[in-house]
Amino acid sequence: MEKMLVFGHKNPDTDTICSAIAFSELKKAAGIEVEPVRLGELNSETAFVLEKAGIEAPRLVKTVANEVKTVCLVDHNEAQQSVDDLKDVTIHSVVDHHRIANFETADPLYYRAEPVGCTATILTKMFHEADAPISKLAARLMVSAIVSDTLLFKSPTSTAEDENAARELAAIAGLDLEVYGMELLRAGADVSTKTVAELLLDAKEFEMGSAKVEIAQINVVDENDVISRLEEVTPVITKTVADKGLDLYLFVVTNILTNDSVGIAYGEKTAAVEEAYGVTLIDHKAPLVGVVSRKKQVVPVLTEIFTN
Amino acid sequence: MEKMLVFGHKNPDTDTICSAIAFSELKKAAGIEVEPVRLGELNSETAFVLEKAGIEAPRLVKTVANEVKTVCLVDHNEAQQSVDDLKDVTIHSVVDHHRIANFETADPLYYRAEPVGCTATILTKMFHEADAPISKLAARLMVSAIVSDTLLFKSPTSTAEDENAARELAAIAGLDLEVYGMELLRAGADVSTKTVAELLLDAKEFEMGSAKVEIAQINVVDENDVISRLEEVTPVITKTVADKGLDLYLFVVTNILTNDSVGIAYGEKTAAVEEAYGVTLIDHKAPLVGVVSRKKQVVPVLTEIFTN
Repeated sequence: MEKMLVFGHKNPDTDTICSAIAFSELKKAAGIEVEPVRLGELNSETAFVLEKAGIEAPRLVKTVANEVKTVCLVDHNEAQQSVDDLKDVTIHSVVDHHRIANFETADPLYYRAEPVGCTATILTKMFHEADAPISKLAARLMVSAIVSDTLLFKSPTSTAEDENAARELAAIAGLDLEVYGMELLRAGADVSTKTVAELLLDAKEFEMGSAKVEIAQINVVDENDVISRLEEVTPVITKTVADKGLDLYLFVVTNILTNDSVGIAYGEKTAAVEEAYGVTLIDHKAPLVGVVSRKKQVVPVLTEIFTN
Repeated sequence: MEKMLVFGHKNPDTDTICSAIAFSELKKAAGIEVEPVRLGELNSETAFVLEKAGIEAPRLVKTVANEVKTVCLVDHNEAQQSVDDLKDVTIHSVVDHHRIANFETADPLYYRAEPVGCTATILTKMFHEADAPISKLAARLMVSAIVSDTLLFKSPTSTAEDENAARELAAIAGLDLEVYGMELLRAGADVSTKTVAELLLDAKEFEMGSAKVEIAQINVVDENDVISRLEEVTPVITKTVADKGLDLYLFVVTNILTNDSVGIAYGEKTAAVEEAYGVTLIDHKAPLVGVVSRKKQVVPVLTEIFTN
């Protein structure tokens, strides 16, 4: 079998990067030649994880068809979140924990999705099913992904399986889960040194009915660290809305200590946010009480509104 | 958790029926309430399998949202092959071995697909992963599905995993794989008592680019048993083309002894069949040498042509 590239979504987060590396380890154990790559710049949380693990970031690619015929996707499936030339390659396998949408293949493939908090939780199970040993490095990367995606099990997306996998992986990696976990989350939530582009880095595009929606999210320890910078942030958001012809851009600023968010909405269809959460946007902002999960508390609610 | 219904595709075949029953056994072992149902009449092969197993056919349903909120799909994922009101229910899980297309969810779900010859092969693995015992009945049904989908391992869709699973299941069920397998295939390939509607029963609809395509297939031991009846069959095909606005209807008559087929094509775009196989349709017919698998040797080839 020819070499395959493995990658997660654009605007990579910790799960996307760490699961690409761990999935590659699993495939290599089965004698399959794979290379993990990334589709964008690392965020500060992921940079912290890789630095602590003592490894370099996977190679950055913009296209894949120029190097390989076949790819594996982790942590995403929607075409608009993937590499630009995805349609020019064959998808060998997908490991993911999101809804399935805007995804189509000509041939049968491996597809493994489970409604758990993190791709790395599914990968942990796949290592066990394949009877493949989990290296200390892979364990460290996978537990980092789980902590990141579940906000240390505080997110409503977190399941008992995520927590069990994380505890097992932390033991293999020799990490104190709570201490390392909070250190990791704080590394991601420190926005003081972030540029405006970095504040909006974790943005994903969705097609909901006929609406084009982009949802960005950032974790903070104090939402005012971001709100105080809206004068710089807003022009970037409105430019994105205009450039991409978006119907809605929602920026979710999530406080990892209180587990609440503030939503900042632009575009023609911001009324969908008001309807979704029973709130009134004042100066494009509204509190989203108890909302921490884009996947579970934002995407399905907005999809429902835009498709009905 | 509320009760869920489990079903395979419209125009059910042996894998669709048997995998729905076996998947239900697996879920019941985990304490989940499920009922296997079917979306259409049994073909003669499946009727043979259930009769030999001494069980009734699953209940026939036309819609599901009137009974349940949540469903599980086996052996298919494309909406046009599924229950008519699929959009009104939530899909809890999918176990399948086909390409993914025209499939979209609002929420994360369980999705397990592998590029093997039969859904039951994946289910066998899932029983093992869950450490759930396989009953003699489930083993009999699953081995029947594998024999049917792989034409006793002769189809190019058949993999080593299918054959290994079938041998293990035959042992559990106490069946002589080769003897029972040929008996089963012959039960399906006996077309002498079939009505025209039954000859065309195993039909699936596909969207390929902007083309609407329907592909029916039947197994025979002598293709002339069907070709001699084309005078009755043709009007039914042309009516289907007109009623559904199809661009192409391809009827694949597969000889399970020689492992060749005859293709019978109607609609505006029959040229796609000529292009796909380098043949000339004479009186709407052409030999398709070595073609036995709709999934592997028909759908991808035509999809390629219609999307380029």
